[in-house]
Amino acid sequence: MRTVGGVLEAVLFSLFRESVKVSCAGRTDTGVHASGQVVSFKTTRSFPFDRLALALNSELPPDLTVRETAIVDDGFSARFCAQERAYVYAIFNRRAPSALLARQAFHVYKPLDLEAMRAAARHVIGEHDFRSFCGMLPDGGVTLRTVRRLELERRGELIRVEIAADGFLHRMVRTIVGTLVECGTGKRDAGSVADIVAARSRAAAGITAPARGLYLAGVRYPDGFDSYREPPLFSPA
Amino acid sequence: MRTVGGVLEAVLFSLFRESVKVSCAGRTDTGVHASGQVVSFKTTRSFPFDRLALALNSELPPDLTVRETAIVDDGFSARFCAQERAYVYAIFNRRAPSALLARQAFHVYKPLDLEAMRAAARHVIGEHDFRSFCGMLPDGGVTLRTVRRLELERRGELIRVEIAADGFLHRMVRTIVGTLVECGTGKRDAGSVADIVAARSRAAAGITAPARGLYLAGVRYPDGFDSYREPPLFSPA
Repeated sequence: MRTVGGVLEAVLFSLFRESVKVSCAGRTDTGVHASGQVVSFKTTRSFPFDRLALALNSELPPDLTVRETAIVDDGFSARFCAQERAYVYAIFNRRAPSALLARQAFHVYKPLDLEAMRAAARHVIGEHDFRSFCGMLPDGGVTLRTVRRLELERRGELIRVEIAADGFLHRMVRTIVGTLVECGTGKRDAGSVADIVAARSRAAAGITAPARGLYLAGVRYPDGFDSYREPPLFSPA
Repeated sequence: MRTVGGVLEAVLFSLFRESVKVSCAGRTDTGVHASGQVVSFKTTRSFPFDRLALALNSELPPDLTVRETAIVDDGFSARFCAQERAYVYAIFNRRAPSALLARQAFHVYKPLDLEAMRAAARHVIGEHDFRSFCGMLPDGGVTLRTVRRLELERRGELIRVEIAADGFLHRMVRTIVGTLVECGTGKRDAGSVADIVAARSRAAAGITAPARGLYLAGVRYPDGFDSYREPPLFSPA
């Protein structure tokens, strides 16, 4: 399977002539986008590092690009040092689909009640066992996470969902969004989301929203560095 | 070759069991997008026309969708009745490319001088023989067109170019944009664009900007109907 880490490792090998392992801050499954991914690696080789982004981008395929690079402390790991990850999910909410958004947003043709979705979101915010919203269990099986922010906003025919947590389980954002959408169409009651959380069973939650609407938007580190970048769909200005 | 008209005709045939010819208001070459295309066709068959968009969208591929449908006068042709077409061109102007915009905008890594591009644009606005900006000559060979609007605006790292005319020649928008970009990087003098127009030769103009940045945004008709829809990249609100 083609992965961000695998493609980067291949290009880094061609530049450094040395095998490197990259550490990615956030998971981006097939079809998921990222505007604020952070990746770290160690190398013993020398390189004109001020030109590393340029060198990487000239070798990388068009769907994977490097915004900037920096030299960091030896102990830094993009994945293990991350304190908070923020994802943005794009829902396209009108009757007709849009060819231009076919790979960039989740088309929901029924009108969504944002207030019901916000009421449902309140049961997700905070520290919980998120096993009900988890695809594959993580190594170690710990499914306790803290959702620090879960905000919904309508912008024309788009709905922007932002969710930030210390970390996310497999398909956690997509299952939360799928469940909120079911509350927004009236299929589920917003109050039932408290029961879903309590159930600690994936079967209790709603659908998994499709990958195409999901964007890893930013990662925050203890030194205050935050890679946040709004996805293009929401940031023309 | 796969075309918008061809795909629509195939789906219309499957719905109506009758061969129909569609008329498209504006050209969208391979890789070009459209948020405001208009297409017309005639049929002798009956159909629940209030459900035609739904029926078409359920058969069409994800990259071609119908926003709305209407029954119009018998003499209407989307192409021949159009009075004005408006295209939007998206330029992404920063050093590093963006994976998320790889198919949606033209990446120009050199800083662009918008004032120089605007000065160049002034020589394009109005009624001219646009042969210098024409790929293939049209049937009949008439290359006189009237550019009514040509506006440039910076929005963060994006530059939005809007161009409206009574009609466009083959690759005319892309050749105008390519020439303006060469003025914006300083490769060409803005004043030289008057000479390019006067030359009536494709060799005099600049590069053809890539298809991926181009959006057919709207078409206007004598009855006042305008299909204009801002491309998603510029319209989150």
